[in-house]
Amino acid sequence: MMNPQILLARRPQGAPVPEDFRLVETPLPDPGQGEVLVRHRFLSLDPYQRGRMDDAKSYAAPVAVGGVMECQAVGQVAASSDARFREGDWVLGGFGWQGFSVRPAQSLIPIDPQEAPPSTALGVLGMPGLTAWVGLEDIGEPKPGETLVVSAASGAVGQVVGQLGKIRGARVVGIAGGAEKCAFVKDVLGLHAAIDHRGDLDAQLDAACPDGIDVYWENVGGAVQAAVFPRFRDFGRMVMCGMIAQYNTAAGADAKGAMAGPNLGPVVRKRLRIQGFIVSDSGWKRYGRFRTEMLGHIKAGRVQWREDVAKGLANAPAAFIGMLEGRNFGKQIVALD
Amino acid sequence: MMNPQILLARRPQGAPVPEDFRLVETPLPDPGQGEVLVRHRFLSLDPYQRGRMDDAKSYAAPVAVGGVMECQAVGQVAASSDARFREGDWVLGGFGWQGFSVRPAQSLIPIDPQEAPPSTALGVLGMPGLTAWVGLEDIGEPKPGETLVVSAASGAVGQVVGQLGKIRGARVVGIAGGAEKCAFVKDVLGLHAAIDHRGDLDAQLDAACPDGIDVYWENVGGAVQAAVFPRFRDFGRMVMCGMIAQYNTAAGADAKGAMAGPNLGPVVRKRLRIQGFIVSDSGWKRYGRFRTEMLGHIKAGRVQWREDVAKGLANAPAAFIGMLEGRNFGKQIVALD
Repeated sequence: MMNPQILLARRPQGAPVPEDFRLVETPLPDPGQGEVLVRHRFLSLDPYQRGRMDDAKSYAAPVAVGGVMECQAVGQVAASSDARFREGDWVLGGFGWQGFSVRPAQSLIPIDPQEAPPSTALGVLGMPGLTAWVGLEDIGEPKPGETLVVSAASGAVGQVVGQLGKIRGARVVGIAGGAEKCAFVKDVLGLHAAIDHRGDLDAQLDAACPDGIDVYWENVGGAVQAAVFPRFRDFGRMVMCGMIAQYNTAAGADAKGAMAGPNLGPVVRKRLRIQGFIVSDSGWKRYGRFRTEMLGHIKAGRVQWREDVAKGLANAPAAFIGMLEGRNFGKQIVALD
Repeated sequence: MMNPQILLARRPQGAPVPEDFRLVETPLPDPGQGEVLVRHRFLSLDPYQRGRMDDAKSYAAPVAVGGVMECQAVGQVAASSDARFREGDWVLGGFGWQGFSVRPAQSLIPIDPQEAPPSTALGVLGMPGLTAWVGLEDIGEPKPGETLVVSAASGAVGQVVGQLGKIRGARVVGIAGGAEKCAFVKDVLGLHAAIDHRGDLDAQLDAACPDGIDVYWENVGGAVQAAVFPRFRDFGRMVMCGMIAQYNTAAGADAKGAMAGPNLGPVVRKRLRIQGFIVSDSGWKRYGRFRTEMLGHIKAGRVQWREDVAKGLANAPAAFIGMLEGRNFGKQIVALD
């Protein structure tokens, strides 16, 4: 049996290009005793995967050149040699950018498709949702009446941050790129205001946050960070989740090559806290609590989500490249046939 | 009775100059019922007083032009109309840059000169010592075996930070300006290494912190911050106490006019925490606990301190200007006759 796979063909120089990936077919063994064959249905594309393409010191090992690109995915059991799983069962795992996996049964996380659509295990009920929840619990802690600003507000993490912030009683302002995303942020997610980062950031922030900002959720870095930073109120918190605008250069410069961050003088005077986190450090231990809370919000209609679904494994590289450029609209997924 | 006072003559443009201050003599009333006349003996000069000279939004109101420069001071009761105080008693208060004060008795904090020299109420047992203790308790939290780097390590706050870090079991590296201060940091304070910021910072940091930095206590900003920041280990903490290198420009630029801070990309990847604090927010509530602990260290000979004593009120402006340039060696005090 042949398995289609996307390999890391070479390490990107700056922004990834299609030639950095290679589609191959490799033979797949039958599942041995205690193993399960999984047919992947949805792959999750996430910004952290850009980091895995570089051979740089980080919190996780890089993908080897010639290795399968890493990702979480949901799939259905196609053949099982373990009593715990039957054909057709939905499962979640770190399956990678490929069509099938053979895995030990105990490494698979079962998914109940009656509870929520299986793809939500990659989004609002999965790693991006948990990331939003953990960062607000541990660092952001928005309080009723406070102003929370979230960048990449229509993205996988951002859309959950905004809505959880609203549920906590904060005034939430979402930053997104373009009129369509801003309309989604305002009308579907129901945030208090939307800001288009392609417009005049300063003027829009002045209008949307006249009293300053208590919590900023950082997904992007670069020019958005520079505009937000001076607007913190005393005791402001900056939740450092990602800086996607700066991922495509080894040195972490933004698109214009700027290396600098904000002057940290106000951190003392305003008693600011700037804190980074990685959800895998402590997030999964709290997954049960998160899931219960989030399912409650979903069932009550308090949380909406949007997915951007690319079709077919061969289109994963283009979807990934587009996501790094902000061309996705919602949680980026690849649906396999 | 005439009272010598140093007034803020005008707001400084950049670094303060002598003409920004004015020495005057004004009449002082006799103490009324419940009031005490205090003859000031030691004035405390501290970097935060530079901020009070600007008419900028901050955590405390500025000194008015024509107003007495603010400071804490210790003095002795010269006349009392309150049963709680007798002539000769030592007291602490926010007395300002002047020779005498008439204050309500209940606003004065008694000092026991048998316990420690009265001037320590302005240093190791006072606001600077409490600042060091609070910042390590709340933000730095150095653990045994961790590497703590403190800038301005021979200064009022820095000398306490370094020694408390050592007592907590950290490997402490102090940064100071010049061979004499570095010798004090190493030999008198007993830190593990001293770095001269006038030399090659990168090479010295490489040698003193081969495995990186867990906690950085920021007193200075500018070039020292830029050199330290890339060396943080995962989960590093940056205690933002002050940025004296950047106080003399309204915009917070460093001496070379640079406005930029570090690129914050590593904050996510390394899960760093950068946090500012002001001791007056919550520090004084814990003063009793701090004092008990610090007195224990002093009596056991575990904590040393050094004062830089200028003589006479007229020399306060020059001492203050020198302190902002790093010319003081230890806690800056002005002794009055």
